[in-house]
Amino acid sequence: MSGSIDTYVTSVRSEFEETLRRWVEIPTISASPEHRTAIRTCAGAVVDHVRGIGGEAAVIETPGNPVVLAEFRAGPDRPTVSVYNHLDVQPADEPEWRSDPFAMGIRDGVYTGRGTTDDKGPALTALMAARYAAEQRVPVNVRFIWELEEEIGSPHFESFVRANIDALRSDSVVVSDTVWISRSRPAMPCGLRGMLTARILLETGTKDVHSGLTGGAARNPVAELCALAAACCDSKTGEVRIPGFYDDVEPVSAEERDALLKSGFDAEVFRQAHGLRLLRSGDSAELAERIWTRPTFEVHGIVGGYTGPGVKSAIAPRAEAKISMRLVPAQSPARQFESLRRFVGELNPDAAVELDGMLPPYLGPREGPYADAARDAMQHAFGRAPVWVREGGSIGAVLTMNDYLAAPIVFLGLSLPEHGYHAPNEHFDWGQASSGMKMFVRYFENVSRI
Amino acid sequence: MSGSIDTYVTSVRSEFEETLRRWVEIPTISASPEHRTAIRTCAGAVVDHVRGIGGEAAVIETPGNPVVLAEFRAGPDRPTVSVYNHLDVQPADEPEWRSDPFAMGIRDGVYTGRGTTDDKGPALTALMAARYAAEQRVPVNVRFIWELEEEIGSPHFESFVRANIDALRSDSVVVSDTVWISRSRPAMPCGLRGMLTARILLETGTKDVHSGLTGGAARNPVAELCALAAACCDSKTGEVRIPGFYDDVEPVSAEERDALLKSGFDAEVFRQAHGLRLLRSGDSAELAERIWTRPTFEVHGIVGGYTGPGVKSAIAPRAEAKISMRLVPAQSPARQFESLRRFVGELNPDAAVELDGMLPPYLGPREGPYADAARDAMQHAFGRAPVWVREGGSIGAVLTMNDYLAAPIVFLGLSLPEHGYHAPNEHFDWGQASSGMKMFVRYFENVSRI
Repeated sequence: MSGSIDTYVTSVRSEFEETLRRWVEIPTISASPEHRTAIRTCAGAVVDHVRGIGGEAAVIETPGNPVVLAEFRAGPDRPTVSVYNHLDVQPADEPEWRSDPFAMGIRDGVYTGRGTTDDKGPALTALMAARYAAEQRVPVNVRFIWELEEEIGSPHFESFVRANIDALRSDSVVVSDTVWISRSRPAMPCGLRGMLTARILLETGTKDVHSGLTGGAARNPVAELCALAAACCDSKTGEVRIPGFYDDVEPVSAEERDALLKSGFDAEVFRQAHGLRLLRSGDSAELAERIWTRPTFEVHGIVGGYTGPGVKSAIAPRAEAKISMRLVPAQSPARQFESLRRFVGELNPDAAVELDGMLPPYLGPREGPYADAARDAMQHAFGRAPVWVREGGSIGAVLTMNDYLAAPIVFLGLSLPEHGYHAPNEHFDWGQASSGMKMFVRYFENVSRI
Repeated sequence: MSGSIDTYVTSVRSEFEETLRRWVEIPTISASPEHRTAIRTCAGAVVDHVRGIGGEAAVIETPGNPVVLAEFRAGPDRPTVSVYNHLDVQPADEPEWRSDPFAMGIRDGVYTGRGTTDDKGPALTALMAARYAAEQRVPVNVRFIWELEEEIGSPHFESFVRANIDALRSDSVVVSDTVWISRSRPAMPCGLRGMLTARILLETGTKDVHSGLTGGAARNPVAELCALAAACCDSKTGEVRIPGFYDDVEPVSAEERDALLKSGFDAEVFRQAHGLRLLRSGDSAELAERIWTRPTFEVHGIVGGYTGPGVKSAIAPRAEAKISMRLVPAQSPARQFESLRRFVGELNPDAAVELDGMLPPYLGPREGPYADAARDAMQHAFGRAPVWVREGGSIGAVLTMNDYLAAPIVFLGLSLPEHGYHAPNEHFDWGQASSGMKMFVRYFENVSRI
């Protein structure tokens, strides 16, 4: 079989590249209302594509963006693997892009453009593996669940799953939307951080006031929000100071901690992959723990006040802080939001806290036949067993599928740190795609034997 | 004489209004490079106007915007009063403007538009008083020094004064650019706060990074600048925490403090005049002290990070805080800047502090023949003696004139708190202009007898 998959992969390279190019050139930015047409165009295009290569596919409506369901069927008595990806993308307005983010560049097997690695490239890789498995009559049903609202927090995914629960019955769920340690270190996360986003608002006046005529008497909402942010979190250490914040954090088992520390996470590789100049620590083990197993509090921006050149010395009438927390098992976003609101209310009764979004953290099994099948598939395709890690990000759909589908979830990601999730010059590459096809085929074969 | 000044004032009302309209309709925004033509147009227009009403006038070049010098001469053996105003204005881009800020509105003796009260209206009031004094052969030379860079910190005023020192010899300097307590409480400041503006910059990366993939490890420059701002000043009380900040603050004499407390400053009038919802204190005496005699530290804006709708959970690569301090006698802006730089450097060695501008504080005499002449003029014109106050703002030209002209400075301001210095819907009114003309005439008469 190994010979024939190699032949297949080699033979489909230009098909893979042309298909990925067509998908990337549809700007499926879910955060932007004016891209709704692109979302629909993409859903239609991928359905046509699946049908053209011998699968079944349909656009399933939700109150928001649709979900595409596709399938290669082996028979109702065979096990079913559901592969989750998303086809919506982040905005791409960063000035650092060196080429049009929606006109995919191809050079030496590197594919540059928004969505190449997050998550259209991995989606197409899995699809082409499923076609091969179907052609080879691997006795497994492979279903694809392609969401188009992942980048905005999956607001309609739960209602979609509830409405289509019978069509979604699965023996195994594969999520392919995660990042390795490095090219030579395949990684498999067993957990995701949750998330809470909120805005803190303070209004002290009705218009800009002159800091000479009023300074000292007038309250300064920008300064007061700075003080609130500083009170919530020590920006030097990252330690969150909201009372009770760490109460529900479950300790990481000695065994998992050992696995995380041995994962090969490297501070310098990480620093360069993300273009960071300065880190909170230079110690690789500490950084890995910080990203995977510790919760955070971030200030993403302070709105209000003067932001032009130089200094305009007016005192602003109102300001808004954009904040988020990444949460770890078993922190509850709802409870953390209440703690935040209470803490801010005690420090500054005039400030209002408004919820923006919530996602609980997730911790899945690292044992069992499907985890073993996934590890074997990665080792088979890439020549190296994956290390257990956690994922610092949050994927809302994972929680929903865990709650409703009652099938074990495995993470078969293909992205590398330098591919640049959510970053300018995002890219994917043929090395990950070609071996990725072998990985998925092997996983489907493994599942057919469970 | 009183009869004839009343007749004069009544007879020139429409001339005053039409002239002020023409001056206001020239958008002399000194902060904006694209308004340089307007600055030149204004200088030319006021020179023509002065010549048209019988005075001498000239545009004096500087390396920046020009200064207009105008004069009504009584003779070389007569005392000379130099009246300082500025004809440049603040930007007027606030959304709260209810009419075009550069198309002056007139309704029931209220003149609305940018620059009406700060400072074209008072300038024109003094000019029309000088014409009357000249017509009445009051034996005093009245000179006007009209700056066009006051709102950007008077960067070339000192070199202008040094280059024209002989032409500027004066017995008395009048500054007409300050604000009363309220319409029924004329006020005369004896001091001004100084000012220091600076930017604090921090760069921790090269691009936005994903707060899931990097959060906890990546430093957050927005959060770190919030912490620095909070460390510099307690935003609740306004207390500045930079070591040594208050060391050089001169205590206010018991006599002056008594005068300030009796000035009639009213917390509620102040609050409404500036459209403030919340103040740091509700106590009038405390507020007056805070504005006039206490130094401040303000954060005017935090640049960097996400400022659109909702929350985008990226961590920014760099941020900048815009800050200012208002300083009181005898604080030195240069020394305070060094203290700020040292303090920030100790707390966060990666942050850079860049100087934007400096103005020392000013404290002038409250006694002597010119102070008496000014008080008498205000009482004569408005029926009530002015109270001694200080001015919370900063006027760079005052320091320069104090250093070089060796003449006592008096402040004959005409603006009211509700006129809205630097605020949307700025206005001036005929009540202040008409009695203001009487005030200036009386002052010129008083000086002619000293």
